[in-house]
Amino acid sequence: MSGRPEFSHLSPEDAARMVDVGSKPVTSRRAVAEAWVSVGAEVAAQLRDRGAVAKGNVLETARLAGIAAAKRTDELIPLCHPVPIDLIDLTVALEDDRVHLVAVAAAEAKTGVEMEAMTAVAVAALTVYDMVKSVARDVAIGPVRLLEKSGGRSGHYKRAEEASDADR
Amino acid sequence: MSGRPEFSHLSPEDAARMVDVGSKPVTSRRAVAEAWVSVGAEVAAQLRDRGAVAKGNVLETARLAGIAAAKRTDELIPLCHPVPIDLIDLTVALEDDRVHLVAVAAAEAKTGVEMEAMTAVAVAALTVYDMVKSVARDVAIGPVRLLEKSGGRSGHYKRAEEASDADR
Amino acid sequence: MSGRPEFSHLSPEDAARMVDVGSKPVTSRRAVAEAWVSVGAEVAAQLRDRGAVAKGNVLETARLAGIAAAKRTDELIPLCHPVPIDLIDLTVALEDDRVHLVAVAAAEAKTGVEMEAMTAVAVAALTVYDMVKSVARDVAIGPVRLLEKSGGRSGHYKRAEEASDADR
Amino acid sequence: MSGRPEFSHLSPEDAARMVDVGSKPVTSRRAVAEAWVSVGAEVAAQLRDRGAVAKGNVLETARLAGIAAAKRTDELIPLCHPVPIDLIDLTVALEDDRVHLVAVAAAEAKTGVEMEAMTAVAVAALTVYDMVKSVARDVAIGPVRLLEKSGGRSGHYKRAEEASDADR
Amino acid sequence: MSGRPEFSHLSPEDAARMVDVGSKPVTSRRAVAEAWVSVGAEVAAQLRDRGAVAKGNVLETARLAGIAAAKRTDELIPLCHPVPIDLIDLTVALEDDRVHLVAVAAAEAKTGVEMEAMTAVAVAALTVYDMVKSVARDVAIGPVRLLEKSGGRSGHYKRAEEASDADR
Amino acid sequence: MSGRPEFSHLSPEDAARMVDVGSKPVTSRRAVAEAWVSVGAEVAAQLRDRGAVAKGNVLETARLAGIAAAKRTDELIPLCHPVPIDLIDLTVALEDDRVHLVAVAAAEAKTGVEMEAMTAVAVAALTVYDMVKSVARDVAIGPVRLLEKSGGRSGHYKRAEEASDADR
Repeated sequence: MSGRPEFSHLSPEDAARMVDVGSKPVTSRRAVAEAWVSVGAEVAAQLRDRGAVAKGNVLETARLAGIAAAKRTDELIPLCHPVPIDLIDLTVALEDDRVHLVAVAAAEAKTGVEMEAMTAVAVAALTVYDMVKSVARDVAIGPVRLLEKSGGRSGHYKRAEEASDADR
Repeated sequence: MSGRPEFSHLSPEDAARMVDVGSKPVTSRRAVAEAWVSVGAEVAAQLRDRGAVAKGNVLETARLAGIAAAKRTDELIPLCHPVPIDLIDLTVALEDDRVHLVAVAAAEAKTGVEMEAMTAVAVAALTVYDMVKSVARDVAIGPVRLLEKSGGRSGHYKRAEEASDADR
Repeated sequence: MSGRPEFSHLSPEDAARMVDVGSKPVTSRRAVAEAWVSVGAEVAAQLRDRGAVAKGNVLETARLAGIAAAKRTDELIPLCHPVPIDLIDLTVALEDDRVHLVAVAAAEAKTGVEMEAMTAVAVAALTVYDMVKSVARDVAIGPVRLLEKSGGRSGHYKRAEEASDADR
Repeated sequence: MSGRPEFSHLSPEDAARMVDVGSKPVTSRRAVAEAWVSVGAEVAAQLRDRGAVAKGNVLETARLAGIAAAKRTDELIPLCHPVPIDLIDLTVALEDDRVHLVAVAAAEAKTGVEMEAMTAVAVAALTVYDMVKSVARDVAIGPVRLLEKSGGRSGHYKRAEEASDADR
Repeated sequence: MSGRPEFSHLSPEDAARMVDVGSKPVTSRRAVAEAWVSVGAEVAAQLRDRGAVAKGNVLETARLAGIAAAKRTDELIPLCHPVPIDLIDLTVALEDDRVHLVAVAAAEAKTGVEMEAMTAVAVAALTVYDMVKSVARDVAIGPVRLLEKSGGRSGHYKRAEEASDADR
Repeated sequence: MSGRPEFSHLSPEDAARMVDVGSKPVTSRRAVAEAWVSVGAEVAAQLRDRGAVAKGNVLETARLAGIAAAKRTDELIPLCHPVPIDLIDLTVALEDDRVHLVAVAAAEAKTGVEMEAMTAVAVAALTVYDMVKSVARDVAIGPVRLLEKSGGRSGHYKRAEEASDADR
């Protein structure tokens, strides 16, 4: 169907491919993604009981892991381009018995930084999981998703409001 | 409280740390994890319309990315040990308008392969997201979670049945 | 001898060195390289017998490995510069009982992408080898070589015609 | 056909997969691979003119690159297992106007080190190419191939004699 | 001279080489290394003024960087073997206006973990430097050195006492 | 205190963070760092006795390791940005019984290349240590420090003269 969006990572012959960004202009790119980790009541209680430093060290470790992984997005995601990252900003906070992770990625580049933001929160969430798994086993990660994106040809995207709190 | 499980990755002084596995025996370790990616009706339809090869190449790319990432788990997750992986087996299938990813990780090691299985499905899910994001923007990843684990001191763990289908 | 080309990666004192590209202009760089893998009659027959998907998965795996490796050229080749890759396009096809791999690399950069194209086909060829080695042992890779290069100070280079088919 | 060797890296459903080596015994594995780089008369002459140190530094750089790459074989080749390498021994010598590279890989492991030896010579050959490409453009790599392999279930393999000198 | 110790990483022909550890027994290896970073009075004062969390986050970031780097020692140091690390334990403390870093590395392996301990403290020290360089420019790293080593053929080594405090 | 320099890698809430370089101009950056390795009389004597090639291969291996590590600075140092390196120039020389390493890093970038120069000399120094540790055990690395830096907002920095020879 004309105008129907297509998989940019599949060639007309259905081979996986990188998108050729050679003729795209360099623009200021920005993307925001979030992840949630349901850690359960016991983990949340221990984080609170052990206070700022314990909580800090669990969540700081996750933050640093997410930042590091975002810088390697093009190594992890096969068809991503290397991007000259200006910023990965990652906040991690305990909300009730879920950990909420939000990453902002920014670059001046020919291609977006959506995957950098997604990778940051996903790997940080895996790290939260690793840090707490000795206390609780039924920890689950999700949703991991894009909140906002700007700088590309398709304009500014912002996820509809309710999504960021009502789900799960 | 005595017997209360503790964060193995925090020292008594709350510093993030690796667990010393020096005195642990080498045993056969196995872990199974899953991830879901809600791709929406349009992506699911296009994958079906373009048939086996197109679908194969989207999902094969994700599988290979997940296997590769699992082999680098100790680089991504700060306090994980390197593990001599015997197997990462990753299946990726379209179920209605969600992609379901299941990874089995196995090794003979002093430490478990839970994070290897979790990393495999999480990075494969990120790759599915990357492969379809030009068609749909509200794709979300989750839940990502452990289904089963064996070989460690704490015996065999299996997630309660309902969890694998009723959520979200 | 004046005018005799010199090893740019050796200093006057014969120390291995990076080339200083600080004062070079950023231009559009493009390179094309090829590799051949002689897989033998049995492998070629099985790839054909097992049809599109089997062949697809052997050759797709090789393509993805080549693309991933090309993005890490500066990690593999000691004196290469990091390059902001715009495109790695890699085609892999069975021709009689040889697999033919052709990579196009492109970037806007101070330095060429010749090694990126060479690395893409070389690592993809290693992966073809790995994928078929359980069926045939006398598989050989080669030639691996540059076909075309443009964008640098030395102008457009194209390998003489006969080279691409008559050898070996 | 019964007894016909099969692609170990394809599942019965033709999905690319790792081989499960969980039940394989740990044995002493050894593999030898070679690569040739046809550098042409001018490069060979300059290497000889500039004497031991210059030649040393070109070929030493290649040797170190090959050793480093062999240690990362499982990152480069998607379905390879990580292997606890005991040795990568790589010799690089100028023979007329070709560079001859031979790598020995050894490990005590459940799986062979064939790909480690192949990767060592292939990446070392790419590095020779990179080191001399400013002097000659029609440099070609190949053949790259296995010479010998032992320690696996299929016994000792040694490539037929003539192969190592008569080709190309 | 007979009995004179030799460079194990140079062949009789002076080529850089890996040591063949194929016939060495697997033993319990342990190494301890330290590094010092002279940060100056202003940095030390600010770390103290900003209290536990700020100091924690500067030094925790360094600790995590050191642990991560130690796991990649064989990628950084060309002739090191991959080692199945059981533990990297890294402590980082402010002493007057110097930061003191001590790493313990442990593994059951054919080869020692001295370079893992050295790499841990060296990269952690670089990270301390990076974290404080906006405040003080004349920060210097050193000495970085081995304190203790055991498990190898040459027995237990312990650096003479005075070395750990009187120098610099 | 107003004007007091602050830790750029800590947020006002003391979380470790990347600096947002999005609005910084691209300028020519250059940094020079040095490291010293005290190898002792025996190592120094053997390097001299074994002549140019042995010394070359020990010191060349260190140089190549330092160059390779500098290209991966943003992977090693958690809050560093990826930088499009134009040059890493690394010299390594034996001076009495110390090895002196000096690295120049250069790039056109929004952020400096100080950490690239520091990482180059630090990892090269670790490699010297590794290459000679079979001959002498009390080898120590240090000082590792910045000599010069230019291209940033804070102007040209040059370490005071005496520092480069009188210490230790």
